[in-house]
Amino acid sequence: MQTIKTRISRIFDIDYPVIQGGMIWCSGWELASSVSNSGGLGLIGSGSMTPEILKIHIQKAKKATNKPFGVNIPLIYSRSAENLKVILDEKVKIVFTSAGNPDKWTKRLKDEGIKVVHVIANSSFAVKAEKAGADAIVAEGFEAGGHNGREETTTFSLIPAIKQAVSIPVIAAGGIGTGRGILAALALGAEGVQLGSVFAASKESSAHINFKKEIIRAGEGDTRLTLKKLIPVRLLKNNFYTEINAAIQEGRSTKEILEILGSGRARKGMFEGNVDEGELEIGQISSLINKIRPVDEIMKELIFDFYEAGNELKRTLHDLKTNK
Amino acid sequence: MQTIKTRISRIFDIDYPVIQGGMIWCSGWELASSVSNSGGLGLIGSGSMTPEILKIHIQKAKKATNKPFGVNIPLIYSRSAENLKVILDEKVKIVFTSAGNPDKWTKRLKDEGIKVVHVIANSSFAVKAEKAGADAIVAEGFEAGGHNGREETTTFSLIPAIKQAVSIPVIAAGGIGTGRGILAALALGAEGVQLGSVFAASKESSAHINFKKEIIRAGEGDTRLTLKKLIPVRLLKNNFYTEINAAIQEGRSTKEILEILGSGRARKGMFEGNVDEGELEIGQISSLINKIRPVDEIMKELIFDFYEAGNELKRTLHDLKTNK
Repeated sequence: MQTIKTRISRIFDIDYPVIQGGMIWCSGWELASSVSNSGGLGLIGSGSMTPEILKIHIQKAKKATNKPFGVNIPLIYSRSAENLKVILDEKVKIVFTSAGNPDKWTKRLKDEGIKVVHVIANSSFAVKAEKAGADAIVAEGFEAGGHNGREETTTFSLIPAIKQAVSIPVIAAGGIGTGRGILAALALGAEGVQLGSVFAASKESSAHINFKKEIIRAGEGDTRLTLKKLIPVRLLKNNFYTEINAAIQEGRSTKEILEILGSGRARKGMFEGNVDEGELEIGQISSLINKIRPVDEIMKELIFDFYEAGNELKRTLHDLKTNK
Repeated sequence: MQTIKTRISRIFDIDYPVIQGGMIWCSGWELASSVSNSGGLGLIGSGSMTPEILKIHIQKAKKATNKPFGVNIPLIYSRSAENLKVILDEKVKIVFTSAGNPDKWTKRLKDEGIKVVHVIANSSFAVKAEKAGADAIVAEGFEAGGHNGREETTTFSLIPAIKQAVSIPVIAAGGIGTGRGILAALALGAEGVQLGSVFAASKESSAHINFKKEIIRAGEGDTRLTLKKLIPVRLLKNNFYTEINAAIQEGRSTKEILEILGSGRARKGMFEGNVDEGELEIGQISSLINKIRPVDEIMKELIFDFYEAGNELKRTLHDLKTNK
């Protein structure tokens, strides 16, 4: 079997340094265990789960795979402390923390023997995560779906900056959805990749079929980073986006915008399938996704294309070496 | 000598498929000829030149290099027709057109035996350029400095999309400023790269020293895409940017914003060195530039780093092949 060996694949003991991002309403036990069974690292996205639901998902994932899997936990949510307790009780071995300060829990998790990765979007938080003891970081570019950094730094500009800032391995995220993308991320100096959109649209994703169809339909320019003053998030353009965007353009107050946002909009769109009124978090690379496919097929194609692109690049590099 | 052979280096008969973007107020004959003399392709940026000035720059470039060089001509400017005449009179062999419809002049230029490249930011214009007969296209991502696409597609998401859309070679632009960046662009399927910011800050750039110092000083998040409704442009944050941005946030009319913009702001900032009141067009990768250096040194480092990163990647790819 062909594997891709980097520090990331070694840390997690996986065949390919391909991580499925932990996404609200999309990545339950079924998606996470499928990705792990295909040689990558699946993550349960706990951001949209109550502690009771999270417990069930972890237990089901354990039954569905013998391979390593993890849980993503966004630090901003009020119930994240309760979810952390579930993670510790269930002896999950890999935790990705995001949307918050890596000082919060890294040491505590490391003391339990857990591998910890923190998601960042700038060098200063990368350094913070390294100091806090994280095993690796996910560096997420502007093109990524969902919550995003305020600096708007894209993957192409971000990875070299993060590589300069830290020595722990870097996982590139944002704009990656093909084998060529994985190769390019490694070329930039990343040692792994985190893919969200591609897996959100997979058969095993728990996203509503209507949302998956919208991902398939999306073309260039169909996502936008919005709510930049509140908490930047990349969304698929729909009625909900248009309404929010109009309020921002009109210079409405934060209070008014929060009222328009209401609550439960992400659930409504991504899980219940109301694609007009709900919030649809997805990355730019959705424009290249044109079919709902099983995870196994997606992973095989990613690795095959990575290998093909790698051989093509090797030929260019070979020419370079012999053209002296 | 080590060269990098792709269709782009063959089309232009250059050692490295590294193109110096034609930039207003930065890329005169001195910068363009230096890049060409170092094995890349230098472009005179005619956007900020009168026909008389452009003629002088072309003539000086001819004296300064025996290597191929070209001229970039933004199609939106009123004097572009006059500048085109100068280009034809002076028998320039390579023309990059940007900011407009490739149907406008591609055929006419091709009929004169000129190599034509068109700059685009989405697939539909890439297809248009190919149909019009362009030899190649520059695909420019959201992270690039200066004028930019409305879709906000980043280099990582854009290159694979453009590769799917056309079969003429693709030159990646936006976020590239290191040898690793060049390697990543080739990994994504590009056959060349266009670099702007790195050369804008070079010794041979005609930018004012104050502007060069601001490029060196710039950190992550210090540039922003603005004027999205008028004509999107990526600027370094300064007083001018803050003023424009405040007007946009307040929901002011296009007329009012145009009044604040005034005229000659780019000249004021980039050429005259008034870095507070002038417009400073630069890319995100400016955060990685930390020294004003001669072009020859920049090119040598780019190629050296490309080669180093290529060897590192080859080792990962080698492992992949033998780990069966």
